[in-house]
Amino acid sequence: MSTIEELKDRIKELENELLRCKEGHHTSGGGELLHRPRIEKMSAEVVDSNPYSRLMALKRMGIVEDYEKIRTFSVAVVGVGGVGSVTAEMLTRCGIGKLLLFDYDKVELANMNRLFFQPYQAGLSKVEAAEHTLRNINPDVQFETHNYNITTVDNFSHFMDRISNGALEEGRPVDLVLSCVDNFEARMAINTACNELGQIWIESGVSENAVSGHIQLIIPGETACFACAPPLVVAANIDEKTLKREGVCAASLPTTMGVVAGLLVQNVLKYLLGFGSVSYYLGYNAMKDFFPTMTMKPNTQCNDVHCRKQQEEYKKKEAAKPKQEQLTEEEEKVIHEDNEWGIELVSEITEEELKAASGPVPNLPEGITVAYTIPNKEDASANGESVQESDKSLEELMAQMRRM
Amino acid sequence: MSTIEELKDRIKELENELLRCKEGHHTSGGGELLHRPRIEKMSAEVVDSNPYSRLMALKRMGIVEDYEKIRTFSVAVVGVGGVGSVTAEMLTRCGIGKLLLFDYDKVELANMNRLFFQPYQAGLSKVEAAEHTLRNINPDVQFETHNYNITTVDNFSHFMDRISNGALEEGRPVDLVLSCVDNFEARMAINTACNELGQIWIESGVSENAVSGHIQLIIPGETACFACAPPLVVAANIDEKTLKREGVCAASLPTTMGVVAGLLVQNVLKYLLGFGSVSYYLGYNAMKDFFPTMTMKPNTQCNDVHCRKQQEEYKKKEAAKPKQEQLTEEEEKVIHEDNEWGIELVSEITEEELKAASGPVPNLPEGITVAYTIPNKEDASANGESVQESDKSLEELMAQMRRM
Repeated sequence: MSTIEELKDRIKELENELLRCKEGHHTSGGGELLHRPRIEKMSAEVVDSNPYSRLMALKRMGIVEDYEKIRTFSVAVVGVGGVGSVTAEMLTRCGIGKLLLFDYDKVELANMNRLFFQPYQAGLSKVEAAEHTLRNINPDVQFETHNYNITTVDNFSHFMDRISNGALEEGRPVDLVLSCVDNFEARMAINTACNELGQIWIESGVSENAVSGHIQLIIPGETACFACAPPLVVAANIDEKTLKREGVCAASLPTTMGVVAGLLVQNVLKYLLGFGSVSYYLGYNAMKDFFPTMTMKPNTQCNDVHCRKQQEEYKKKEAAKPKQEQLTEEEEKVIHEDNEWGIELVSEITEEELKAASGPVPNLPEGITVAYTIPNKEDASANGESVQESDKSLEELMAQMRRM
Repeated sequence: MSTIEELKDRIKELENELLRCKEGHHTSGGGELLHRPRIEKMSAEVVDSNPYSRLMALKRMGIVEDYEKIRTFSVAVVGVGGVGSVTAEMLTRCGIGKLLLFDYDKVELANMNRLFFQPYQAGLSKVEAAEHTLRNINPDVQFETHNYNITTVDNFSHFMDRISNGALEEGRPVDLVLSCVDNFEARMAINTACNELGQIWIESGVSENAVSGHIQLIIPGETACFACAPPLVVAANIDEKTLKREGVCAASLPTTMGVVAGLLVQNVLKYLLGFGSVSYYLGYNAMKDFFPTMTMKPNTQCNDVHCRKQQEEYKKKEAAKPKQEQLTEEEEKVIHEDNEWGIELVSEITEEELKAASGPVPNLPEGITVAYTIPNKEDASANGESVQESDKSLEELMAQMRRM
């Protein structure tokens, strides 16, 4: 028969185990409950226990030359919502070296119509909940999370510091910044930071009616930045007034967000591992299963001083290249004649169809539209106010974009 | 001071709680550990605690007329792997009425490069592991799982029985069957069952090199079935010999599979809820971000007797329609002239480009190719054997398809 002391010890033991269970399964605690051991070196061995066999097979298939290289890359994901969480999960499962996650939101039951988060995580911060799930999925990935809003002054400078120094090797910049945010200010903050740092990033977005989305690769100085031209979106045709009413929220679907995250991470893999062709702009219209693509040159009149500086740098770099290389690149690039907005079409739209598209917006492939129109400068001057002076219309624009 | 009996009771209590914890979080046990209560009626109220607010918003946005209708539908998902698991998760989060899951595989660490399953589930059957996760995500959905291979004789007839009778209201057929399997036999089994039952289904697939995929809606009698024409795939260009070597496995990516699942479920939602245009065939080429679409008429010479019967039924139904309706439908349908394969192109390819594509295969939009070619009947007769008699080449075909 057991003594009272023995029974008490058993109770203590069970209580501790229960605590670890409750913590461990859902929050993974201090990392002591990892569900698979870390793997030092990626192997191509075809056994059921190898989580990398199907990825390493990309080498044998002739798709990727050096898949293991994925472990050397660091990617920042800003916004861990419907698109960002799935983006982070895909990169984690692909075995990315390091992920830096930025978000200041909490998980809510209202997020359950999108992939990734589960009801038991309601109330946790998104970055914390995401890190725990992702660490369980792949303990080989390094995580760094920041539970704050990047648009406030202090946080913005910390954000700048982390994307410039937060790679696997501290002090080196991350390889890519992915914008998975849902508002205009956050996109502009990322744009400002990346222009200043010359940091390549990919913007993503889903419309308020949940049936269209896009991704856009931005290489400071080389392609249009977010401030160069009105942000492009796949036509949504929502009545803005609908959204202004009290108690009204945007729609969302796990399908559209999953597709956008998939196209985004596919572009990331192609860019980092050097296979296929990387898309500059890729839209998704779910109503018609239509996927417009295009590229856009930077605007020499861009309001962002750092964008203009990056453009100068890029021109110098291009001019310094040997003549032969320049020619080849030029030949490849000029598929269609440039229009006044410097937009090059890569989609199958004809010149006639392009010309048929009129109005105060740049000529765009069918199905793509601008999120807002920039007032014509001449018209504005005639009315005695420039774009910068027109505070009210800018506010309206901001309000409109905030709900994107 | 506690008595020995009291201490023993406490131990029992803790042991039970620990068991529930261990089961509950990862396997949800008998359903007693649901992480949110069931919701009787979908509400559009915009509060953080409402998991349906962002879906019900589709009504206010003018996208879907009656979103609540989603709860009346039953969908069978055959194959709960890289595409099927994400497909089931998306439908669960959308609040589908009932899901029937079919698979006979176990979760392995080698599956961790795709979304959904987690390392702690390794060793569990896929349908069991999926059901538990999905039930935690949305307890409003009804689940029915079958841990078997649908291609064996007994299982096939049980499979037929469940898709004809397993809807929310027992005795009624499911609304859709989704093929998310990874081999030829299983696809053919689904095709045979659906032709016999006149059951509408959607086929999906991802190439062995992981960088292309497709979905194809099959309406028995109205569109080509899987036996009508060689199955179409987005060009993969893999050296078949590579795959035949010992210890070689197909590559896979969470991105491609996530995109294909997203496009598949989007098509399901459009079909069931009646919005946008439903795609008959939609391909995805990840290397080029190219998405070909098309439709295919059934083959009047199809080997499947039930397909031919369904074609007769369809013709009768069409003939019985009032003349005006027929005309309108015909006008809408004939976008391009039919070619010998009855393939109608919906993509932007020109007739000239189409004609330029030659060889012993049907004229297809750029980037789409057939998974195998059917030997020319005249040639085969000249050699004294028909397609059906040529056992060896059929076996070769099967072997080839098995690895798809």
